[in-house]
Parts: sequence; structure tokens; C-alpha cells
Amino acid sequence: FRQWASKTPGHPEYGLTPGVEATTGPLGQGFAMGVGMALAERFLAGKFNKPGLPVIDHFTYAIVSDGDLMEGVASEAASLAGTLGLGKIIYLYDDNHISIEGSTDLAFTEDRARRFEAYGWQVIKVEDGNDLAAIRDAVEAAQNNPDQPSLIQVRTHIGYGTPKQDQASAHGEPLGAEAWAAAREFYHWPADDRFVIPEDVREHMDRAGARGRELQDEWLVLMSDYRAKHPREGAVLDRLLRGELPADFMADVPAFTPENGPLATRAASGKVLNALATRLPELCGGSADLAPSNKTFLAGYDDLRTRGPRARNIHFGVREHVMGSMVNGMALHGGVRPYGGTFLVFADYMRPAIRLAALMDIPSIFVFTHDSIGVGEDGPTHQPVEQAMSLRVIPNLAVIRPADANETAAAWKMALERRSPTALLLTRQKLPVLDPTRFDTTGGLARGGYVLVEGTARPDLILIASGSEVHLALAAADQLAEQGRRVRVVSLPCFELFEAQPKTYRDDVLPPTVTARLAIEAGVTLGWERYVGESGDVLGLDRFGASAPGGVVFQNLGFTVDNVVARALALLD
Amino acid sequence: FRQWASKTPGHPEYGLTPGVEATTGPLGQGFAMGVGMALAERFLAGKFNKPGLPVIDHFTYAIVSDGDLMEGVASEAASLAGTLGLGKIIYLYDDNHISIEGSTDLAFTEDRARRFEAYGWQVIKVEDGNDLAAIRDAVEAAQNNPDQPSLIQVRTHIGYGTPKQDQASAHGEPLGAEAWAAAREFYHWPADDRFVIPEDVREHMDRAGARGRELQDEWLVLMSDYRAKHPREGAVLDRLLRGELPADFMADVPAFTPENGPLATRAASGKVLNALATRLPELCGGSADLAPSNKTFLAGYDDLRTRGPRARNIHFGVREHVMGSMVNGMALHGGVRPYGGTFLVFADYMRPAIRLAALMDIPSIFVFTHDSIGVGEDGPTHQPVEQAMSLRVIPNLAVIRPADANETAAAWKMALERRSPTALLLTRQKLPVLDPTRFDTTGGLARGGYVLVEGTARPDLILIASGSEVHLALAAADQLAEQGRRVRVVSLPCFELFEAQPKTYRDDVLPPTVTARLAIEAGVTLGWERYVGESGDVLGLDRFGASAPGGVVFQNLGFTVDNVVARALALLD
Repeated sequence: FRQWASKTPGHPEYGLTPGVEATTGPLGQGFAMGVGMALAERFLAGKFNKPGLPVIDHFTYAIVSDGDLMEGVASEAASLAGTLGLGKIIYLYDDNHISIEGSTDLAFTEDRARRFEAYGWQVIKVEDGNDLAAIRDAVEAAQNNPDQPSLIQVRTHIGYGTPKQDQASAHGEPLGAEAWAAAREFYHWPADDRFVIPEDVREHMDRAGARGRELQDEWLVLMSDYRAKHPREGAVLDRLLRGELPADFMADVPAFTPENGPLATRAASGKVLNALATRLPELCGGSADLAPSNKTFLAGYDDLRTRGPRARNIHFGVREHVMGSMVNGMALHGGVRPYGGTFLVFADYMRPAIRLAALMDIPSIFVFTHDSIGVGEDGPTHQPVEQAMSLRVIPNLAVIRPADANETAAAWKMALERRSPTALLLTRQKLPVLDPTRFDTTGGLARGGYVLVEGTARPDLILIASGSEVHLALAAADQLAEQGRRVRVVSLPCFELFEAQPKTYRDDVLPPTVTARLAIEAGVTLGWERYVGESGDVLGLDRFGASAPGGVVFQNLGFTVDNVVARALALLD
Repeated sequence: FRQWASKTPGHPEYGLTPGVEATTGPLGQGFAMGVGMALAERFLAGKFNKPGLPVIDHFTYAIVSDGDLMEGVASEAASLAGTLGLGKIIYLYDDNHISIEGSTDLAFTEDRARRFEAYGWQVIKVEDGNDLAAIRDAVEAAQNNPDQPSLIQVRTHIGYGTPKQDQASAHGEPLGAEAWAAAREFYHWPADDRFVIPEDVREHMDRAGARGRELQDEWLVLMSDYRAKHPREGAVLDRLLRGELPADFMADVPAFTPENGPLATRAASGKVLNALATRLPELCGGSADLAPSNKTFLAGYDDLRTRGPRARNIHFGVREHVMGSMVNGMALHGGVRPYGGTFLVFADYMRPAIRLAALMDIPSIFVFTHDSIGVGEDGPTHQPVEQAMSLRVIPNLAVIRPADANETAAAWKMALERRSPTALLLTRQKLPVLDPTRFDTTGGLARGGYVLVEGTARPDLILIASGSEVHLALAAADQLAEQGRRVRVVSLPCFELFEAQPKTYRDDVLPPTVTARLAIEAGVTLGWERYVGESGDVLGLDRFGASAPGGVVFQNLGFTVDNVVARALALLD
């Protein structure tokens, strides 16, 4: 227990211990992921079930704590689960009246039952956590209510049967030898065995295992029947449950050309997403009340508040945090490829969920639009400056900030092909489309960074940029070339993918001998030193933004071609 | 409106527009900061008010939206405000049934009144937002309930009196000329004036201004009276309201010596905090249910659920996010120096509040203990690896990771002297105390980075570390010195403070000619390139941690003296 390389870490970890369906140490996350799992079940059931063939049909159970219920993310989850009417959620609330600082009365005096009823949940109370019959009755009542999620409030006692019962110290401290002896006596366990599995517990677990095998066998028969009667749907469901993509999934995604005119990458993302939706019925998601801005809506499909084969849009409400956790829950459930969108600055609101996606290493997709001071009028509260870098430091997470519509399409491809989480950082403002006959945007994006303009094999200077600032770099490179400077331009949309390339490739893109390097990104400079080195420079933004039209903010904070040229020349001299 | 350098940005900004008491663009934050403001009022009233001299006595009003109520942070705030019985909170809920994606019915069907009653609030409904008499009655009923916060649910209509009334498009889109003309007609405003201030509105505002001046004059008289009758308390209150520290505020803080034995910096912080508490009655705070671990409890003082001169400990419950927002609200209120504590990994839960403290540039203090894989057994969900760097990228925020007890004391001094926000990153595990007769920990901390071991004026190698890893660097330097290597050791507890030093100082600490540099920190490497350059190396952790005793995790992930020595020698050769 809690030793190096053991299967029993301090908190349950997905992927480490068999049977653990989600990593739930940070409070509230399990509650919220369960809502995502239940929504995934509704999504798949609506799409695949046929009369007499309910191949997707399960409840979502969880045990939740006082701490879970205090967390804001659980409140968001409970409110949304009520609105969605996720009747197959059955949560047992371990109501033990104890938190780490002492009695829950210190900080948690609300009427929990009333609160959950207000959310639209069915609340069932069990007065004694040892009354198994009462718990069984409550679970059955929950199962019999298809329209409301159920909270079964079970009065329990922390450290039950030990001398530390009902004490905060029972939460995390070892019992100690004496208390341990007393507990053994209470439970009628042999005093001398270090580890005890009472016979009735073993028998119960054996029965549970046998019952699980039976149920699985029944389901396999049902699936065979389904495949026989509905071969097309059966093949799709099999593919979805394997988590595989069809070979042609990008077939309907448009190839963007400069002739289409400038396009915000969020708009390109919306077009790509809708093109993907027809080939990928598993794509399912929404926005935290910003769908018109995030361009995350799948046109022609229904709201997942309804049940049916075309229900795949989710209105998360102004609840970024639970959106992140629910996307994780849906990804964990499987059979679905979930995404959630908001403004990049509000990635902060869902950061614990993003971290958990990274820790579990699951393929959650987060769509973050309005990715810089280019947000403009909404002002510094809505303008991210530190978010891109703050996401890049999360292990396993690919943060992709595409420079145009085709990089955006390639970023979606990458996000879907990855089995790890991805954040897409997209502009509010329009950007030119890089000429795909001149630039290998698709191949380049997949490598995280690539040479857009070669300069020469041995350029004087390298301009490195991501996203919208790539266009500044290109324009500045043109001016510098006119002045006889040999300038390379590198598009670096994703640190994570670039770092995964062989060193030879990275050195080809950023030759170590070329030390005059200028990085350009409308965000904090810390972190860019990795690529510009100590002789280089970063045109970034180590302050918050300002409310004004986006172009004005860029201009006044130094993101102009002239300034890039001036900083480049300063480096060269 | 929303133009460069105007006083009317897209969202209200504290410090920019006179009269704006908090920056509230990100939803839920205003709701939560108001709870902090109301708690600050209780704190000061309990400490200073005398019979007949209620010098601190005000309500906290806010207008809150559907979006605010959907955010988890507002749920946390409402639950805690109910528990605390903050009866002087009066929130008017602008219940307009519209969110950006459309009707609030899409995602927000809960019974809001019932939910707030469950939290312990008084809920008063006003059916017509234009019924000023009804609103006045409701506010008076709220004022007359001293024990419960009040939510006045006012049915309103977005875009009232315009053709876009009750439509989502009224939220952010300009009205357009035609709709604007129709609205003018509805309001009986002249059709030809671009800007209109109706006469009755002007008169009302003039009366409000005059009334404000009268109330202020009355309060100034009351304060004079207070100072005359209670000169000692009056002087303290004046000092607190000016936000000044007494000259001797560090006088009771112990000087730690190696003879005290090793000490976790969280434990040192607890001792420092309690020593400060006697000289600084304005210090007030608590933890998100981790006080025994965070060492944030002020011994001998009361819980702020009570009212009285000794009430200054806050039990925030498992609600990190609202803790951050409330700390901000208290800092904005003034007269109090608030702090809030949790594990560093859960800084993610309160990141939107930390960002807002930084954007408003207010002196909030965040105490983050368990600052690395040294957390040990709790495992990767509780072990921060990316949090230190992710906080360092936030402008204005000083992230201080002290290396021992005396650096911790100096960090608290710095946090209190700053008028900007500070995050203290503290260890769970014990650390040796650096000999203060040999190392200038106090003076060095104030500069953000300093030379611990000189090596020579021109060392072969510089080891740079923060926090617990400083001790690895020192031990490795000893071994390297024995091998004849001239090694400098730099303690770099705070990037932000170090960057604020003159270049000459920074170059003295990290001479540009010494390019063999190894940074050591048990966290992500991205960002450390700023100090090690392209010839240097970083011994960091670009993966998540593991559940095992802290020492084992450090050992197995490469944080050993031998490994530091090996990496250093590799750099030198």
C-alpha cells in the first residue's frame, strides 16, 4: 500500500490498478466524471439500441464524500445532471460528518438533500450505513426512477469499529497498533493476522466475480445478436468501442486555400468539426455557453438533453470546470470522442480537469478559442497571455496553436489520432490562409514545428512563431530578405509534438549554429528560452492586455511587422 | 467604450475606473469576492466596534447573473456564506432567463431559490425588475435579516425596451441603428442625440453623490470620536485602513538555526505566521480543509464564524476556488491582510482567483504546502510537478519557494511588504536549516536569487536550485569541490523578484561567461532554460510523480546527490 510500483497507490489511479475506472484523488472530479460517463451511456444508447437489443444499458454508480459535495465542480455537475435528467446516475453519499479539519459543521452546514432536490435530483436517505437492506432498497428506488439522477444520502461513521470512529484523525492517519487491536476485536478478526479476509467477504467477492462473468457473457450474446441483425451499426459500434478511427475520417475536411480569404482558426475549426461529424458519429461535445463564439456546434444534430440517434450537442452552461471533467468521463467511458470548448482564458477554470486528463493520459479534446490579446474589446479579463505556456507545462498534454485554417485541420487530425489529451488554441480574429502549394502545413503540424521559409541552409536569423504571430514573422522575413538578410521562418504550433521528434529533425529545423533567434508569441516569454537560447530574444507579453479593438491592442503592445524587423535587426547586429 | 486607454473597458476593471471595487469579468468571481468583503467587514467590526461607535458597519451589495450562479465558485461561496451566516450580504440576482447560447432552459433548469435556501440564505423574489418599490422592500427585508445572506431574485428582461429584448443577441452584440432608434422611442429619448442622460437620471445621480458625501462626513466624525475615546484602537485601525505595516512586525519571528534540527518549510511557515499574528492583528485566513497540514491555523484565536475581537481563523471547507476569491475580496476590502492555504497541486482549483489577484495587482497571499513529489504516499494526484512553473508565468505574481526556515520567514516578510500577490511554496518534508552565520538567506531571498556558495569569482559550474533541491545542490557542490571543481551554488527561490533586480546584480549571481549551469528543481524543466541557457542542463521532472514515501520518490526519479554530481560532470566535460 502506497509503495513504489505497487498497485495500491494513495489514491485510485486509472491505468495502474485493474478495475479503477477513473483517477479520483482531487475532490469533486469523480462526481463530475460520473456525469460524463452517464451522458456517454445516453449518447451511445440513443445511437445504437434497437427494440429488444439494448446493447448499451447501464447505470453509473459512485460513492461521493462531503469533500466532493463542497467542491464547486460537483455543484456544476449536479446542476447539469439534473437539467439533463440523467436518471441512470446513482450516487451513494458517504455522509460521515467529518472533514480533515474536524466536524463538517465547521464549514458545511447546508441542507444537502434540499440542495440536490433543487437541482432536480431524487434524494433518498439511509439513516444507518450498516443497514444493507435499506441501502439495497434505496438503490432499487434509484434504479426505478429513469428521469432523475439519484443521491442516496447514507449516514456513515468514519473509522467505524475503531477507537478513532467519528474522528478527523481517522481520515489519513494510521490507526496505530493499539487501535488496530481494538478494531480487530470489534470485527471478531483474529488478533494475530496482519491481513484478514473474512470468509463471508471472500464468498461475496467470489459471487460478485461469477455474476460479472455471467453478465458479460449475456452481453456478448446480445452483441452477437445485434451484429447479426444490424451488421452496419454493429460494425460501427465495434469500431467505436475499440476506439479506432475509420481510414477516411478526414475525407470531407475541406482543403483551405488563400483564395477563400482570411479565416479565423476558430471558424476553420468549426468547419472542420462539422466535416468530421458525418464520418465520425462518435464526435460529441459542446461549449460552456460560448458555442456561437467557439464554433463547436454540430449543425443539424440534436441536443443531448434528448435521446435519439442524432443527439450529440451538449449545452454545458457557464460551467467550464465540469465541462472538462465530463469530457474526461466520456473519454473514459469509451465509444465516444468528446470535446469541450470555451475561451482560452477560461482554461484556468477547468485546469484540474485538464491535469487529470493528462495524468490519466486519455484522449480528451479541449477547444480553446480567443487565444490572445486578439480577443480585443472584452479586455484583459478575457485575454489570455499566460495560458498557452501554463498549459504547455502539463505533461502528456499537446497544446496546439495553429497558424491558419490548414494547420487547424491538421491539428484536429492529430487530436483525434492521439490517445493522449490535446488542447487546440484558436484565434478569434481572421488570419490569412498559408498557401498549401508553398507550405507543408499538414505535414509540418504533425511534427509540432517545421520550416515555413527556408532562408538558406545557413540562415543569419531564425524567426520562430506560433498561431497568429506566424503571419507577423512571414511579413517581417520578407522585409528582412529585402534588406539582404537570410531569414528562416519556423512555425512552432506545438512544443509537445516537436519535442517528440528525433534530435536530428529538431536540429534541422533549428540549427544549433544559428544562435540569432527571435520567437514571437502574444503571450508570456518564460519558456520560449528553450528555443531561442541565451543569444536569442522573445517578442512576447509579460503583462496583461487591454480593452480595445484587437488590432489596436496588437499594435500598441508591439506586435507589428516593424517591431519584429527592429528586434530582428538588433539581434543580428 | 472599449477603446485603448479609455476608462470604460469591456468588463469593469479595478484600479482603472473610479468606483469599480473589483474586476469581475470572469463569471462567479464577483459573487465570491463579495463574500470575502462581507467577511472582512465582520472581522473588522468584531475587532474595532465599540458600543455606540460602529465604525465598521456596512452591507455588501452585488448584482449577480445566471452565469454567476452556474459557476462552481459561486456555489462554494454561497454555501460558505450560509454557513458563516453573513447576514450583511445582499445580492440582487438579475434573473433574465437568457445566456449566450439562448434560453437558460437549455442548461440551467434548477430551482435557484430552493438551492439558496438549502445553503441557508434568505431568498426574496421580485416578479418585475421595473418595480422599484418592490425592489426597495426586498432590500429592506434583506437589511433586516442580520443572520442570513440574502438573494433577491429579480425577474428582468435583457435588452429591455429594445427590439432585441429577451434575446441572447442582446448580451454582446451592438443593437444596430434601427433597433437603437426603436429603443430611443420606447424610452422617449430624443432621436437625434448620440448620448442621452435623462434629466431624472441626472438628478438621481446628483442626489446619490450628495448623500454619499454626507454619509462619508458622518463617518469621519464617528471616526474622530472613536480616535478620541479609543486612541490605541483608533491608531491601529487607521494603520490598517492605510494598509501599512508597523516597523517592528518581524520582531517576534524566530531566527532559525541548524541546531533547531531539520524543519519542513510548512512548519516554519506556521511558526512565522503565529509569531506575526501578535504584531499584525490584520492577519486573517485559513485553509481549504487542510489547516493541520498547511499549518495555517492561528493558535489561540477564534473561528470567524463567531463575532468578536479574537475571531480571525477561517474554515473554508473543501473549497479552494472560493478561498482564493475570498482572499481577494478581503484584500480589496482593506483593513485586513488575508491568506489562504491548500496543497500546491490544488492551486489549479483556484487559478482563476489567483489570476484575478494578479490582474488587479492586490496583496493576496496564497500558502501552498506539499510543494513537490516530496508529498510522497498520496501519489501523483497530490504531487505538483507543473504547478510552480505554471504560477511563475502569471504576471505580477511572486512565486516564492524557500529553501529553509529562514528563507521562509523572509518570504513571509516579502509577501507582507508587497502590494502585489504572492504565492508561498512550502515543503511537506523536513529540510535542514541553512546556517545563517554562513548564508545570507534573508537578504538573498529579498532579491529572488543569490549566491549561497561562491566557488570562485569565475567558477567552472553553477548549480541553481529552489526550495528543497537547494540542499541537493549544496551536497553535490561539496562532492564536486572535493574533485577539484570550482562550483557556485545559487538559491533561486523567486523568478519574479530576481527579474526585478538590476542586470548588474543578476550578472553577478549568474556570470554570463559561465555557461556550464545545472538547474535542479523537482518540477517541469520548461522555463528553467531562462537561467541555464542552451549550454546548460536542467534536472527536473517532465512526468507525473508516483505514490511511495517521499524520499523513495525523490530517489527513484533522479533527485539524488550522485545524480546531480553526474549531470554536473557531464556538463563540465
